[in-house]
Amino acid sequence: MSAKQPIAFYFDLFSPFGYLASTQIEKIAARHGRTVDWRPVLVGITVLKIMGMKPLPTYPLKGPYLNLDGHRFAQIYGVPYKPHGLKGHNSLAGMRAFQWIKSFDESLAVEFAKRMYAKLWVESVDITPVEVSADVAAGLGVDREKILAALASDEVKQALTTAVNDAIEQGVFGVPFFIADGEKFFGNDHIWMMERWLKYGRWSPEDSVGL
Amino acid sequence: MSAKQPIAFYFDLFSPFGYLASTQIEKIAARHGRTVDWRPVLVGITVLKIMGMKPLPTYPLKGPYLNLDGHRFAQIYGVPYKPHGLKGHNSLAGMRAFQWIKSFDESLAVEFAKRMYAKLWVESVDITPVEVSADVAAGLGVDREKILAALASDEVKQALTTAVNDAIEQGVFGVPFFIADGEKFFGNDHIWMMERWLKYGRWSPEDSVGL
Repeated sequence: MSAKQPIAFYFDLFSPFGYLASTQIEKIAARHGRTVDWRPVLVGITVLKIMGMKPLPTYPLKGPYLNLDGHRFAQIYGVPYKPHGLKGHNSLAGMRAFQWIKSFDESLAVEFAKRMYAKLWVESVDITPVEVSADVAAGLGVDREKILAALASDEVKQALTTAVNDAIEQGVFGVPFFIADGEKFFGNDHIWMMERWLKYGRWSPEDSVGL
Repeated sequence: MSAKQPIAFYFDLFSPFGYLASTQIEKIAARHGRTVDWRPVLVGITVLKIMGMKPLPTYPLKGPYLNLDGHRFAQIYGVPYKPHGLKGHNSLAGMRAFQWIKSFDESLAVEFAKRMYAKLWVESVDITPVEVSADVAAGLGVDREKILAALASDEVKQALTTAVNDAIEQGVFGVPFFIADGEKFFGNDHIWMMERWLKYGRWSPEDSVGL
C-alpha cells in the first residue's frame, strides 16, 4: 500500500470558520486514513488585501448570514463557539508562534493552535499581544523567554511570510482551505465534497452521498 | 398530516451556480416531500451593489477556485455546463419575463427559467436581448407579441423590482439561496445542510450524515 498524502489544512486563528473546522479536521482525516498538515495563512492582513476585499462578515447581507452559519456549524459539530466582538485585533503573533513551534515540533504546534483558537473563539481573549502566545506556549512546556525572543526575530517573521506566500501561490483565499490529493476545497460547507474525493477520487453522480 | 411548506429557491439566470442548483432543486425537494417556489433576484445588477462587491468570479484567487468548483459540481450532478465567456451581458429581460410568466402560470415560468439557463450556461447564448426571452417563451406556447409588450411595460418592471426587494429583505446576497422552513442556506455547497434540516429540523452532531 502506498503512503497516503496528508491533508493540507490552511488556517488563520483570526477566522471563526477556521476555528470551527479545526475542531473536526483531525477526525475527518482519520476517517480516511490521513494525517493533517496544518499550514498558516493570514487572511485579514494579507490575502483579502490582494483580493481587494474586506473581511466577509463585515459585508451587508452576507454578514448576518455568516453569523447564523457559524452558530449552526458549532451545533452540528457539537463544539463551543462564542463570537468575541473584539475589534482591531489580529492573529500575527499567534501565527508566527505557530510557525516557529512547527519548525521543531509539529504536533506541539497543532496543540498550540487549538488552544489559541479556544482562547479567541470560546473564551473571547484578545490574542493580539505576544504575551498571550507566550503564555499558551508556556502552558505546553515551551520556554517563555525563548518564544518571546523568537517572536521578535526577523527569521520567525520571515518564516511566516514565506509560508503565507506559499499558501497564496496555492490559491488559498480564505479559511478553512483544504488541499487533498491535489484537489482544493474552501469552507466548512465543502468538507462533504472533500470526503467524497478522499473516498472515490473522482466526481460522478453515481457516488452520491445522499443524506 | 399538515401541509409542508415549499422550499424557496432564489435564482438569477446570470449565475453559473444558480444554473447548477436549478438542475437539482426539484429532485432534492421531492426527496423531502416538498415543492419549490422559484423566486427571482438580481445579483449582479442590484445585490452586489448594495454589498459593495463585484461578481465573485472576478476576484483574484477566488475566481479560479470558483471556476474549478463549477466544473466539479457539474460532474457531481451529471449535467452539462459550459462557461460562456460573455461580457457586458445581463439577465434583466429574462428575469422580468420569468416574473411575468409566473404571474399566470408558475410551472410554465419554471420551465422557461430552465430553458433560459440552458441557453446561457450550456449553449453560450447571450440572453440579454428581449428577443431571446421572447423566442424561448414562444417555444413554450406563449404569444410572442404579448411577452414583448409585457417586457416593455412598467408593471412588469415594477413586479420584478418588488420581488428583488423582497429577496433582499429576506437577506438574499447571492444565488443559489434557499429558505426551507425559515432556515437560510447559500450555495450548492450548503445543500447537504438544507437536506439535513429538512430531515431532522434541528442541528445536532447525532444527526451526522457521514459519507
